[in-house]
Amino acid sequence: MDETASESNNQVNTKLSTAPYKGVRDFYPRDMAVFTYITDTMKSAAEAFGFLEYSTSVLEHAELYGSKTSDEMSRKETYTFLDRGNRLVTLRPEMTPSVTRLVAARARELPLPLKWYSIPNCFRYERPQKGRLREHWQLNCDIFGDTGVRGETEIITLAHYIMTSFGATEKQFEIQINNRAILVDILKACLEKQGFELEESELSQVMRIMDKKEKLSSQEYADELAQALSPDRAETLLREYTPDNIAALIPTLPAFQDFMELQKNLENIGIKNVRHEPSMVRGFDYYTGLVFEVFDTSGENQRSLFGGGRYDNLMDLFGANRIGAVGFGMGDLRVRDFLETHGLIPDYQAPTDLFIATIGNTFKQASLLAQELRSDDLKVSVNLSEQKLGEQLKRAAGDGIEYALIVGEDEVTSNTFKLKHLPTQNEQTVARNEVINTLFSLD
Amino acid sequence: MDETASESNNQVNTKLSTAPYKGVRDFYPRDMAVFTYITDTMKSAAEAFGFLEYSTSVLEHAELYGSKTSDEMSRKETYTFLDRGNRLVTLRPEMTPSVTRLVAARARELPLPLKWYSIPNCFRYERPQKGRLREHWQLNCDIFGDTGVRGETEIITLAHYIMTSFGATEKQFEIQINNRAILVDILKACLEKQGFELEESELSQVMRIMDKKEKLSSQEYADELAQALSPDRAETLLREYTPDNIAALIPTLPAFQDFMELQKNLENIGIKNVRHEPSMVRGFDYYTGLVFEVFDTSGENQRSLFGGGRYDNLMDLFGANRIGAVGFGMGDLRVRDFLETHGLIPDYQAPTDLFIATIGNTFKQASLLAQELRSDDLKVSVNLSEQKLGEQLKRAAGDGIEYALIVGEDEVTSNTFKLKHLPTQNEQTVARNEVINTLFSLD
Repeated sequence: MDETASESNNQVNTKLSTAPYKGVRDFYPRDMAVFTYITDTMKSAAEAFGFLEYSTSVLEHAELYGSKTSDEMSRKETYTFLDRGNRLVTLRPEMTPSVTRLVAARARELPLPLKWYSIPNCFRYERPQKGRLREHWQLNCDIFGDTGVRGETEIITLAHYIMTSFGATEKQFEIQINNRAILVDILKACLEKQGFELEESELSQVMRIMDKKEKLSSQEYADELAQALSPDRAETLLREYTPDNIAALIPTLPAFQDFMELQKNLENIGIKNVRHEPSMVRGFDYYTGLVFEVFDTSGENQRSLFGGGRYDNLMDLFGANRIGAVGFGMGDLRVRDFLETHGLIPDYQAPTDLFIATIGNTFKQASLLAQELRSDDLKVSVNLSEQKLGEQLKRAAGDGIEYALIVGEDEVTSNTFKLKHLPTQNEQTVARNEVINTLFSLD
Repeated sequence: MDETASESNNQVNTKLSTAPYKGVRDFYPRDMAVFTYITDTMKSAAEAFGFLEYSTSVLEHAELYGSKTSDEMSRKETYTFLDRGNRLVTLRPEMTPSVTRLVAARARELPLPLKWYSIPNCFRYERPQKGRLREHWQLNCDIFGDTGVRGETEIITLAHYIMTSFGATEKQFEIQINNRAILVDILKACLEKQGFELEESELSQVMRIMDKKEKLSSQEYADELAQALSPDRAETLLREYTPDNIAALIPTLPAFQDFMELQKNLENIGIKNVRHEPSMVRGFDYYTGLVFEVFDTSGENQRSLFGGGRYDNLMDLFGANRIGAVGFGMGDLRVRDFLETHGLIPDYQAPTDLFIATIGNTFKQASLLAQELRSDDLKVSVNLSEQKLGEQLKRAAGDGIEYALIVGEDEVTSNTFKLKHLPTQNEQTVARNEVINTLFSLD
């Protein structure tokens, strides 16, 4: 047996698995209908605010994720590989670096502010669990430009609008907000008292140490700060960062003024389910001011549904001038969990308006009739099977199609057809040119 | 300097490129609008025929492409890599194996026939060129079940319908059809005369040899056939496969009868730009009967725009019972080239209905007004900048937004606003509750 024949035999004998790759989903039509409902609702909401859609490839240069992204996103949890040309490629784990790249590439020509959205799929190599798979789709809405509190107001208003577009009431979700810049300003003010400065590049390290203060002894805490900042600056910080000093400082900080204005704006727009949560900072290093997260209040879905914030420095990655940026990412998995918890997933609706059943050898005529009806914007499915009429209609009803037109050889001759409303079984005989007009009056 | 500080400095000093990965595209909003026009037209056309949307992940087990796919698609042109769990993963190069996998996985429960579509992105590692990039999106329409000539008629009618949905006339494109089964039946009939058989596993090899007959000497041709089939069968084939025998055989072949019926059906439906092209077989091994390709007749785009055919054996991969299948794949790149050649890409239309300009400190009030208008299904973009009125309106007009509402402090007090039609500069002062009614009567 030659090599080719042996290969052919192997092909026949080896059964492949029909399972999808681990941690990703197959979308059969009914699953796809729910997915499309979710993404269509996201799209409509973003466009209701004048956001424009953009997109990029899932393939990005791996270096895009080499810095400024969070620990969670570090290289060990990404899909990264060498392509055949020896380029290190990553399947994007999130969209923010990509959209920043797009804006940086045309920073001089793009008129600001920009309001952009996209619904990319994102990949993470991790153990699949509820609400977290290896692939998910994520609505990203971002505003670029110096829009200050206005942009922050708009982003949170949009996040709120999307939730209510899904049918959620204000009682079913809560928007927690905080501002990292307030903490940064306090740290800077404490150090300034002794003439010290704090570099931006040192911030995330200091915040990380402060975030885990509870888990450290006083000595460990002091040592870590000293290592991150230098002994004299660490000592100043430890001395000045006291509740009394913080309380006195806060009202004088510009970041706090802005934060108060944001809350007033939201109140004025009629958004009531917003709460200041001082401990919330989100896991991404790149946030520089506002951060927010949206939670299910039912207790069923503990982790945040989605969130975002301000990231004014990410342009630095590309050596471009800084442009203010605020945005959020909303994954499809947790939204779906939320909708299921609250009974907000709508019943399936077939996209097809009319099924044409055939009796005998009428396929050719049924197809021609279908083409005529399609030219009037009707969505028409013609029977392709050799099933009997009863089976054809049962199948169409099972597919959720509401109307059926019956085309037998007599009907072709007389040019009149039986039109049936499948849920009620109401029917009527109609002339060829009356099908559309009769259609929606029959239920 | 400790390690962390040094790492931070590296971050600041290293500028990343803003270019996308080689051979893939960034879609800025205007590019995205064209892309969305193309995919929306595809979706509408598929749904006009009662096709239902499904989807899968771009990640598939590499073994799915290990056999039965064409030479073109062989492993050296795929993106294949080991994941961190040592699974060999491929970024799908085409959708047919994936959709076959889905059907095979639920072969017992899915009611046949199925009419399914999807618009997946597909990857090929190759040198980027016009009409061929490393990533493209491809409408896939497939019919599963024993639908015979009816299914083939439907698939070609749909392909034709999509082209006319894009505004193409029958003069601008041609559908070439052929049937591989006719050739197969002829080969089998030739061998049967001596009591020989032809295995399906031998077919693609024999067809490949016959396809390159012109390039071989008679002796080389005979030798290759003998090696693929065995000397006695090859000898029989060489003796019996003559023009006279073929001409006598053809009218008796079931595949030829079907092929004639298909052409009659298409004629009856009113499709005129179909032509039988006996030399066309398409580059995929898995086709078993009908094959077709659609060409631009202008001469601008030489390669086929898209194509498809019947692939009844692909279920074998999964050890599932055979289910008839016919379908096609239509890539976005060549469609776009076709539309550009024929001037069929529509002008950009902004998705936003109304821009609200602000004068002075009225953002809060403008946002509240915007929310009210959104609840009436209007798409409203509120000014977030500190630009002057003239600049705001210029920007909105540049974005293609047709209407602007001007909200200054006086307007907030009087609750009446100036509504402007930007292309004509027509304007009118309207009360808050009359904005929507006035909107579309102003142009």
